[in-house]
Amino acid sequence: MKTFLLAIAALGALPLPALAQTGLPPDAELRAAALEWFEPIPDAPQAPPGNVLAPERVALGAMLFFDPRMSRSGVFSCQSCHNVGLGGVDGLTTSIGHGWQQGPRNAPTMLNAIFNVAQFWDGRAPDLAAQAKGPVQAGVEMNNTPENLLGTLKSMPGYVEAFEAAFPDEAAPVSFDNFARAIEAFEATLITPDSAFDRYLKGDDAAMSDQQKRGLAAFMDTGCTACHAGRNVGGQDYHPFGVAERPGGSVLPESDRGRFAVTQTADDDYVFRAAPLRNVALTAPYFHSGAVWDLREAVSIMSSSQLGTELAEPQIDEIVAFLGTLTGRQPRIVHPILPVRDAATPQPQPMAR
Amino acid sequence: MKTFLLAIAALGALPLPALAQTGLPPDAELRAAALEWFEPIPDAPQAPPGNVLAPERVALGAMLFFDPRMSRSGVFSCQSCHNVGLGGVDGLTTSIGHGWQQGPRNAPTMLNAIFNVAQFWDGRAPDLAAQAKGPVQAGVEMNNTPENLLGTLKSMPGYVEAFEAAFPDEAAPVSFDNFARAIEAFEATLITPDSAFDRYLKGDDAAMSDQQKRGLAAFMDTGCTACHAGRNVGGQDYHPFGVAERPGGSVLPESDRGRFAVTQTADDDYVFRAAPLRNVALTAPYFHSGAVWDLREAVSIMSSSQLGTELAEPQIDEIVAFLGTLTGRQPRIVHPILPVRDAATPQPQPMAR
Repeated sequence: MKTFLLAIAALGALPLPALAQTGLPPDAELRAAALEWFEPIPDAPQAPPGNVLAPERVALGAMLFFDPRMSRSGVFSCQSCHNVGLGGVDGLTTSIGHGWQQGPRNAPTMLNAIFNVAQFWDGRAPDLAAQAKGPVQAGVEMNNTPENLLGTLKSMPGYVEAFEAAFPDEAAPVSFDNFARAIEAFEATLITPDSAFDRYLKGDDAAMSDQQKRGLAAFMDTGCTACHAGRNVGGQDYHPFGVAERPGGSVLPESDRGRFAVTQTADDDYVFRAAPLRNVALTAPYFHSGAVWDLREAVSIMSSSQLGTELAEPQIDEIVAFLGTLTGRQPRIVHPILPVRDAATPQPQPMAR
Repeated sequence: MKTFLLAIAALGALPLPALAQTGLPPDAELRAAALEWFEPIPDAPQAPPGNVLAPERVALGAMLFFDPRMSRSGVFSCQSCHNVGLGGVDGLTTSIGHGWQQGPRNAPTMLNAIFNVAQFWDGRAPDLAAQAKGPVQAGVEMNNTPENLLGTLKSMPGYVEAFEAAFPDEAAPVSFDNFARAIEAFEATLITPDSAFDRYLKGDDAAMSDQQKRGLAAFMDTGCTACHAGRNVGGQDYHPFGVAERPGGSVLPESDRGRFAVTQTADDDYVFRAAPLRNVALTAPYFHSGAVWDLREAVSIMSSSQLGTELAEPQIDEIVAFLGTLTGRQPRIVHPILPVRDAATPQPQPMAR
């Protein structure tokens, strides 16, 4: 299926002195090899199946995404843990939620999440709409109920009008399903095209430095691409964590068995969705445990736990340099002006259990 | 100084039937009376004394305002309690801060705060820069220290560059003072011009309905303007709460003696800065205690506690209708993309005491 052209490249017909010294294949061959594994982030967003990116729907989704009144406490919004200014994460080991509870897993980015095979670290939500229904109800996160959420939305004329505009053909547009679909529509627009890597994939030889290109070659050559491939350089499949060597308990806590909790099959013990690596330079700390703050250390742990090898320091530097090319153009989001509460709007309940 | 022209208006030379029925003075006279008390929000922001609104400084201020890493926990930013999408408030009775502590007073809006005589409910900060240093250090709010804050800022090349651009003539631009000045510059841009009231003040008779105009007349006639006047319809002076009749303990808790804590003079017992009423329809709940969710109830409490009168229901409705005209054009803020953390960046400490 996938073929490495690096061996061929090493025997290439154009032994440019600089490249020969560094072991770097010619760009055309490196690019051809990379295109066997990866594809660029598209320049424009695409509607998810069963949804549309009508401006009214995306605008409603942005309102819902940024509105802390979607939480029981009135404190947390989607944006609290998936910050559009921080690469789509909160920069915490694991997120802080209702009542200052600490969640069990590191918050993954919603940027480019539309391109993942499924959502959450264990893939338990098939799409972004299903995902959007999770944190809002989780006691450790936003601790709300669909009833209280819909009561909040229906109490505000500004939201009722926005739902009517976003779902114009529906008799009862303000529903939990449509709450989720609007957020999915907004999140589908949160893509980060035009990274150095994507420009390189599209033919711009100068978009990446030699060190970054060596990192790309090493990323493919050492086998990182077995798990991290596709449009999101990960996020496309499930794999056991610790296949070669189990990392320490702070990185891979015994109590979190990953996808096993979803499928209840032994094969899925400590299996997680491979982390999508787009914008990974922005999304520390790393792993589902959020235990590792340094990208070099994360790469090193991956090489020992997944590949069973100890990469040399310069090679780790090169791979980290390559990962830096995955930072794309961050979304430019105007903070929405949110609907005004009404006398009937449920009051926030920060002290609710 | 200030004169009521309403008595004159009632004897006006143009007894238009509709106006005569409602007791509403002609627009020219109502406007002239209003201009004795109020002035419009300017269309463009102005630099605070000792500061400049250079784009680089405002942009840095926006970054700092939206960055949760300014808090010890990594959870709260200025925006958490002063939400640009919610009229500049958090919509909570009193704010939730570090460790889920509940703060002592309702979060006031930063919109148009540049026009207040001083900052905080008790005026303890003379300007927005002094104000900006408060919550970041308050144990019950962001629980940070200047040292940890500066360590965070100096660790990120993106912030160092932004400070250098914002304070180009300074040898050591990354300072706690400049942190505060940049936030002050950003907040000085957060003004809400073009409200219906302002358009009316500027000569547009149709900008307000008859009910709203009657409310404006009543607002002046009953004496609300004794405390709520000037550009912000309040925020310009200090007054005792409960001058005519002390409201209940949930609205005016005995333990919070207001400006007394600042000046230690008996005259300042239960004295607060008069609430600025710009955008008041957006900023429930009301009072420093945040105890009142309904604007009608707030007006009613004010009339009994401050004016010693019981306003009739229709007059309360009119005043509330007038207060609705104080909602201006809300700021259009692009969420800033925040600098990337570095290996040296202090880690968030959500569980710190």
